[in-house]
Amino acid sequence: MFEQRLAQTADLVEARLADILSGRSPALAGAPERLLAAMRHGALGGGKRLRPFLLIESAALFGADERDVLDLACALEAIHCYSLVHDDLPAMDDDDMRRGRPTVHRAYDEATAILAGDALLTLAFALVGQPSAIPAEARIALCVLLAQDAGAAGMAGGQALDLAAETRTLHEGEIARMQAMKTGALIAFACEAGAIAGAAKAADRARLRRFGETIGLAFQLADDLLDETADAAQLGKAAGKDRERGKKTLPSLHGIAWTRDRLAGLVGQAEMELAPFGERAETLLDAARFIAARDR
Amino acid sequence: MFEQRLAQTADLVEARLADILSGRSPALAGAPERLLAAMRHGALGGGKRLRPFLLIESAALFGADERDVLDLACALEAIHCYSLVHDDLPAMDDDDMRRGRPTVHRAYDEATAILAGDALLTLAFALVGQPSAIPAEARIALCVLLAQDAGAAGMAGGQALDLAAETRTLHEGEIARMQAMKTGALIAFACEAGAIAGAAKAADRARLRRFGETIGLAFQLADDLLDETADAAQLGKAAGKDRERGKKTLPSLHGIAWTRDRLAGLVGQAEMELAPFGERAETLLDAARFIAARDR
Repeated sequence: MFEQRLAQTADLVEARLADILSGRSPALAGAPERLLAAMRHGALGGGKRLRPFLLIESAALFGADERDVLDLACALEAIHCYSLVHDDLPAMDDDDMRRGRPTVHRAYDEATAILAGDALLTLAFALVGQPSAIPAEARIALCVLLAQDAGAAGMAGGQALDLAAETRTLHEGEIARMQAMKTGALIAFACEAGAIAGAAKAADRARLRRFGETIGLAFQLADDLLDETADAAQLGKAAGKDRERGKKTLPSLHGIAWTRDRLAGLVGQAEMELAPFGERAETLLDAARFIAARDR
Repeated sequence: MFEQRLAQTADLVEARLADILSGRSPALAGAPERLLAAMRHGALGGGKRLRPFLLIESAALFGADERDVLDLACALEAIHCYSLVHDDLPAMDDDDMRRGRPTVHRAYDEATAILAGDALLTLAFALVGQPSAIPAEARIALCVLLAQDAGAAGMAGGQALDLAAETRTLHEGEIARMQAMKTGALIAFACEAGAIAGAAKAADRARLRRFGETIGLAFQLADDLLDETADAAQLGKAAGKDRERGKKTLPSLHGIAWTRDRLAGLVGQAEMELAPFGERAETLLDAARFIAARDR
């Protein structure tokens, strides 16, 4: 039931992203076809679209219709996809496969992958800003928040810290900071952005932010656990890369049993955060449980 | 007199960018120091700051105070600097020097240069969106316009077309399209954004856009002319690279005399566009003449 709902939203996001990246949208009219094709390669054809789902369900908690926040959700996914395209580059993680297909720099070339990432990142702000059912004041707040959570103090900064971990072993506090920025910031944005788009009160907005931060932690823990236990066929990308590179993760420091306990604790914390919303928050809590238990 | 004014604005932009990139600004609080240092390397210490100047002077034409549009001007410069950092990468133009100093990937490393560029690009939208004297509706319009002019249908798309020119000789129309996107879009944005920030009427906004497009053409022609005639000491970067690579430019197709005639024609067109503003437009027209005549 939950996975069905997740898949339905993924289809919706896929279709809208495909429409936007066809080049017919105002922000992309006149863009070179090969660059557009590379952007589509990086953004379409896969992914659980978990961040858009969290955004749409967080907005729904405050009565916002999914059609009114779909482009905002696509903006967030464009940011996520740009980060994958750049992270896969030879100078970064040097990955050849992503979602079971060649990475963008493999399917095209390195320069095109850099530009496709840049263009997906830039596109996100056109999508956040464009006229929509969300009032201008909220759209501008979303623009600033997205820039903070995606930029040097958020996702991009987390990736920089992760690179530093290749040459120096991070201690546990540094690993936590890196992961809160690299993965947590954008997941927290998803939930807070839904609250903003739904015109939530400040206290509820803060509550959704904390919920997002909690499940962001769970997401990264589950990811690191998979790196320890899964194989490439399950992931659609290379497995065990962190182990191979000697990168420390919390599961590698504390073991698998500790990690599963911690994941259960984070789900409990997420449930507490959303308790005031009662049954209306059930889908978001299903998402939290799904994130903690996912096996690919 | 004009060059003094340009230098004064450059100092103002440099100081404000240095303050923003110190990491004390809200958008960058908590960012990793090495990433911030790479961003500073890519954005501080040089450049004529021509785009911020055009933006500030365009806004002044409609009565806007430079202090009220300074962060918007810095946002535009952050976009310009990100594009230089990424264009210099080994996979792109592979340049070792920029403004007489090592490029970011030379001074740091390739991964850090990619991330520093990403983070400068992202920062720009935090700066455009943040609370300021510019009304929210105008800020959101600026956000969308900047995303269009910097993205796949603007600057990033132009760079993609320029890369294609390495493997295939472009015909004259294709060269013009590439340059209008790669260089023209951001210069046109500077002038149109000033008009938006100054709450100009739609017709005046369109006039400033056309003025920006005209001087954008002049800027690129003057640049290509310099590539034909100048040496590296004058430019602070490698000269004659286009010649060396066999890349066609309009000066290489039509000769130096044709180019100087065309530049004079563009200055005349720029003067006509701004004629309705009378003497108040004199500084912007000085900028147009400076762009057409510059020797570095």
